Amino acid sequence: MTDFRSDNVLGCSPEVLRAIERAAEGTQTSYGGDEITASLRRRCCELFNADVDVFPVLTGTAGNALALAAMTPPWGAVFCHEDAHIHRDELGATEFFSGGAKLITIKGEGGKLHPADLERSIDEIRNSKKTAVPACVSITNATEAGTVYSPDEMRALFDVARKNGLRVHVDGARWANAVASKKVKTNGIDILTFGATKNGTLNADLIVVFNRNLSEDLSMRMHRSGHRPSKMRFLSAQLEAYLTGDLWLSNARHANAMAAKLRDGIAANAEIVRPVDANIVFVRIPPPMVKSLETAGFRFSDWPIFGPDVYRLVTGFSTDESSIERFISVFTRR
Amino acid sequence: MTDFRSDNVLGCSPEVLRAIERAAEGTQTSYGGDEITASLRRRCCELFNADVDVFPVLTGTAGNALALAAMTPPWGAVFCHEDAHIHRDELGATEFFSGGAKLITIKGEGGKLHPADLERSIDEIRNSKKTAVPACVSITNATEAGTVYSPDEMRALFDVARKNGLRVHVDGARWANAVASKKVKTNGIDILTFGATKNGTLNADLIVVFNRNLSEDLSMRMHRSGHRPSKMRFLSAQLEAYLTGDLWLSNARHANAMAAKLRDGIAANAEIVRPVDANIVFVRIPPPMVKSLETAGFRFSDWPIFGPDVYRLVTGFSTDESSIERFISVFTRR
Amino acid sequence: MTDFRSDNVLGCSPEVLRAIERAAEGTQTSYGGDEITASLRRRCCELFNADVDVFPVLTGTAGNALALAAMTPPWGAVFCHEDAHIHRDELGATEFFSGGAKLITIKGEGGKLHPADLERSIDEIRNSKKTAVPACVSITNATEAGTVYSPDEMRALFDVARKNGLRVHVDGARWANAVASKKVKTNGIDILTFGATKNGTLNADLIVVFNRNLSEDLSMRMHRSGHRPSKMRFLSAQLEAYLTGDLWLSNARHANAMAAKLRDGIAANAEIVRPVDANIVFVRIPPPMVKSLETAGFRFSDWPIFGPDVYRLVTGFSTDESSIERFISVFTRR
Amino acid sequence: MTDFRSDNVLGCSPEVLRAIERAAEGTQTSYGGDEITASLRRRCCELFNADVDVFPVLTGTAGNALALAAMTPPWGAVFCHEDAHIHRDELGATEFFSGGAKLITIKGEGGKLHPADLERSIDEIRNSKKTAVPACVSITNATEAGTVYSPDEMRALFDVARKNGLRVHVDGARWANAVASKKVKTNGIDILTFGATKNGTLNADLIVVFNRNLSEDLSMRMHRSGHRPSKMRFLSAQLEAYLTGDLWLSNARHANAMAAKLRDGIAANAEIVRPVDANIVFVRIPPPMVKSLETAGFRFSDWPIFGPDVYRLVTGFSTDESSIERFISVFTRR
Repeated sequence: MTDFRSDNVLGCSPEVLRAIERAAEGTQTSYGGDEITASLRRRCCELFNADVDVFPVLTGTAGNALALAAMTPPWGAVFCHEDAHIHRDELGATEFFSGGAKLITIKGEGGKLHPADLERSIDEIRNSKKTAVPACVSITNATEAGTVYSPDEMRALFDVARKNGLRVHVDGARWANAVASKKVKTNGIDILTFGATKNGTLNADLIVVFNRNLSEDLSMRMHRSGHRPSKMRFLSAQLEAYLTGDLWLSNARHANAMAAKLRDGIAANAEIVRPVDANIVFVRIPPPMVKSLETAGFRFSDWPIFGPDVYRLVTGFSTDESSIERFISVFTRR
Repeated sequence: MTDFRSDNVLGCSPEVLRAIERAAEGTQTSYGGDEITASLRRRCCELFNADVDVFPVLTGTAGNALALAAMTPPWGAVFCHEDAHIHRDELGATEFFSGGAKLITIKGEGGKLHPADLERSIDEIRNSKKTAVPACVSITNATEAGTVYSPDEMRALFDVARKNGLRVHVDGARWANAVASKKVKTNGIDILTFGATKNGTLNADLIVVFNRNLSEDLSMRMHRSGHRPSKMRFLSAQLEAYLTGDLWLSNARHANAMAAKLRDGIAANAEIVRPVDANIVFVRIPPPMVKSLETAGFRFSDWPIFGPDVYRLVTGFSTDESSIERFISVFTRR
Repeated sequence: MTDFRSDNVLGCSPEVLRAIERAAEGTQTSYGGDEITASLRRRCCELFNADVDVFPVLTGTAGNALALAAMTPPWGAVFCHEDAHIHRDELGATEFFSGGAKLITIKGEGGKLHPADLERSIDEIRNSKKTAVPACVSITNATEAGTVYSPDEMRALFDVARKNGLRVHVDGARWANAVASKKVKTNGIDILTFGATKNGTLNADLIVVFNRNLSEDLSMRMHRSGHRPSKMRFLSAQLEAYLTGDLWLSNARHANAMAAKLRDGIAANAEIVRPVDANIVFVRIPPPMVKSLETAGFRFSDWPIFGPDVYRLVTGFSTDESSIERFISVFTRR
Repeated sequence: MTDFRSDNVLGCSPEVLRAIERAAEGTQTSYGGDEITASLRRRCCELFNADVDVFPVLTGTAGNALALAAMTPPWGAVFCHEDAHIHRDELGATEFFSGGAKLITIKGEGGKLHPADLERSIDEIRNSKKTAVPACVSITNATEAGTVYSPDEMRALFDVARKNGLRVHVDGARWANAVASKKVKTNGIDILTFGATKNGTLNADLIVVFNRNLSEDLSMRMHRSGHRPSKMRFLSAQLEAYLTGDLWLSNARHANAMAAKLRDGIAANAEIVRPVDANIVFVRIPPPMVKSLETAGFRFSDWPIFGPDVYRLVTGFSTDESSIERFISVFTRR
């Protein structure tokens, strides 16, 4: 059985397991006062070349919603793509954590927000005076459509945000894949929710706060929402291993390469419905072929919001190249 | 250095690490649809001899507040001891998750609620009509004072709750220690927040739902608060190991025994300010002795709400017997 | 100066003032236990031919958001038109009162939801599983576009709601105008927010609960949000006067007739951009004419979301027929 | 029938009715942009000799909870007396509006907070670090016990607040009675919820903001909680009449005088259980006398939290002196 349903069906990198084992030795101050968490913060300052605060977190949903709650008042508007995970997949987490802020969703090709559309939407909300108060923009990179904003595309969006006094959040559930794909940078970001679970940790993502004015508030929200574990070191250890020796990047490069190989192997025989910039392939597959692939032991998800017969295949840090080759072989067999 | 500040300064049981390693192999359905989580549920049904639902959770704070939010309307009253962790240590988590419910705190000797006091408080709130609507009672067992409610004490409280139409929550951050101490049972409990982190897991506690009418609501709350990890199996695996072969009980027995040994070793020379039923010793220590102990490498927490010069010492599943002996030796030396 | 900016710039019906004066005599039980509130409830049961509960309320925003909060869980989806007042004009009131429910907005010509679009949106949200749980539909009648759903149009929408297990809310800020226009009925409605302020009271609208299972919860929400005044009788008295002897309907008929007269008087010279079913006229006016009208003492609001140069003119229960004639005369002068 | 249950069973001052009638003429900008609201603000600046913002509000509960929500973060502690209306009578309004802040209740003789107790409670919460973050103190003047803090008592409490970085809220549901009794001033107050409904208006209290940094946030909260009526002028008109020509003070002086007369008339025959500083008398009445008084047509409330057989009698702006005399006559007859 080969499972392409998501990158979260995979296990974890062996380096992460070993880091947990090491962290289990001895005693440590609880609630984040430990040395591993301190070391993680130093590593992030170095990696991002900035004085950042970091908050390890159990899930991307918590990471996104806590970050956004620190960036918007309860009556604020959070601008995002209509397919954004924060809107479609988190059961109102942002609304809950923020005390009722509004997600203003915007259409955009390739899963991306476009600057003119963002500007128009901000204007409309601002002019309404009574819908919500424009507070921040949230983009996902790599996007939910498997595309990656380039550094220039990000800059153009962040310029619109800054000009309008909005803060900038990036849902980086697949940030590593975006960096591996287009060398994206963190300039202009107030808070990055830096994913790791989909790319090698067990259950540990990281909130990276560039705008440190937000940290105190965020810290309070973490505690009272049960997202500040007493043995924080076991989250931090995973993340430290993830960021050591470029494990995060090499994992992402492998995942991206596997998706590219998959796309290249089937493109002649199928409609690829979104550009494959990262580790996700959206492809139209006719029903008989779906059956053949399932019979051959492959699992993947249907994705009806991208059209009829569209399926999503996700590769990951531990995807075996031979499984890609087998998939292509079934797909291209006649 | 020997750290008695809390049981959460410790690492984890080796069985838990091995379970995580095993869980890292292969792929699994995400968000709790995996086989390990299913197996954990079966194990709990067997252990509690009841058809329960289980929700692994990152922290006890999340476990408590999510459980209580499912048991009270936003205008409900949650009755608890004035020293309850849900009131003193969670920065308003219950208020946040419930949408503004009220904790009604009650005094009680030995960290315990007493039935007549509970009844009086329920009556007062009910008669007020406009303070809050009595919704549930939450007790902690073992208590924050290191004592343990006996089965009879629990039954008497739960009778008051049932008679008044209130639901029953138990904060079992140290439930294993309570079972090891007084063979307590789960009869009459609607939801148990079953602690494990303080007693051998990395970061995994368990919400055990006996009143399954509450499960659907609880499941929604978990997701939208970021407490439903995609790789749920890594929480479930820890808990399954914890509940296999009575690891949870043997760990707790050891912790309790170490606390008893500590108490017995110093009782002749010091005032023990709370009965030591579980793994916590509250003791009055004169300042010069505090200095001597610290110099000898011991760490522990001052506990001013229990009086001047009172300190808390917590033992755990991995506390070394020789460290207890060294502590006693420093303490009783003259 | 003649003010067509909204129906809420007007004063109140003299009958309402006299009812307040009468209510000011003697003493009454507070918080809604008074005789006037009891009498209002009886009048509503008679008027709607149903056993209803009623909750007088200060504003339509409160009426809408409190009603919706009683009809949706915090993770629910409330389906509404993209121009709905609850989305555009209440600064997140529904999100606030409900604890973070999601408004799912739907496009629809003439300010109306259309059954097939509603059904498609419900399906999409239901299939997503993780966006929100479909909970209720809210329509506005008369709509924000000045149109009125016919009884058949309402029935078709409510059938979709019922088939999908959704509750039905109607924002009836201009319900009287809808009844006056198309004899609409309340069949199939769970809660009606029955407007009065725009049509003759000072500051008093009415929540009418047909599905009385929702009343207890609603009553709690009213109190804790400061919407249960101690001298309730002064709200109830306004509403009782409003519903006595068909004042509500005759006021609305006048307002509707004035809007029709306005439309008829200018239609040959201007583009009327929405059908005029009730008391609102949306019309495109060229800038020089805007200036002439303002110079002649008329005030009205620009309405850019309906297109460039579009303005909204609202008539009301006390609109003077001669002011309409003067407006037409300026408009058609050359 | 003479009703001493509360001051909110009464009607309103004739001046208030006449002001509403005047306000009903002509048209006005809605949502508080009207001339009456502007004039009310000017009157308050003059009255309080300060540059204040004012927000008319339907109820004292809304006024208190909205004010406090603007003064505390969701994880804040609001210190108040254990008998405070915000704790006992508002069904968790402060918890709801603030997003889960904690009321920390403090005992205190005569319904008053005492500086040393306040300081101790602040210290305890601050030292806990994880209960809540001290944010503000709320006192009620006149108190729920019918006593009045003197200017010196207020100053001493506010000094504690300021020294600890806390904001100051006053629940002035009976502020006029406090001014009439002890010439209290507003120095040191951030927000005053200035009651009027109990002392002559229909349904209109006033939030007076001295610390204008809080106004923008408060304004948003008003709107999204349905507490910003479109025809704001009808609230403002009541309050303007109330503050014109010292109506507020003369009404309160009458109410206070009636309570003093009542107390003086029965003091020789009964135990007065709280000092009568304002318009409330708490008195112990034996059951047979309760029966006699009820038979004679008097109504009043039992008040068990102040002891067995204790009753509350409230006088008001329109209490008839002869009704007091009749009450005394029944009470002292033998």
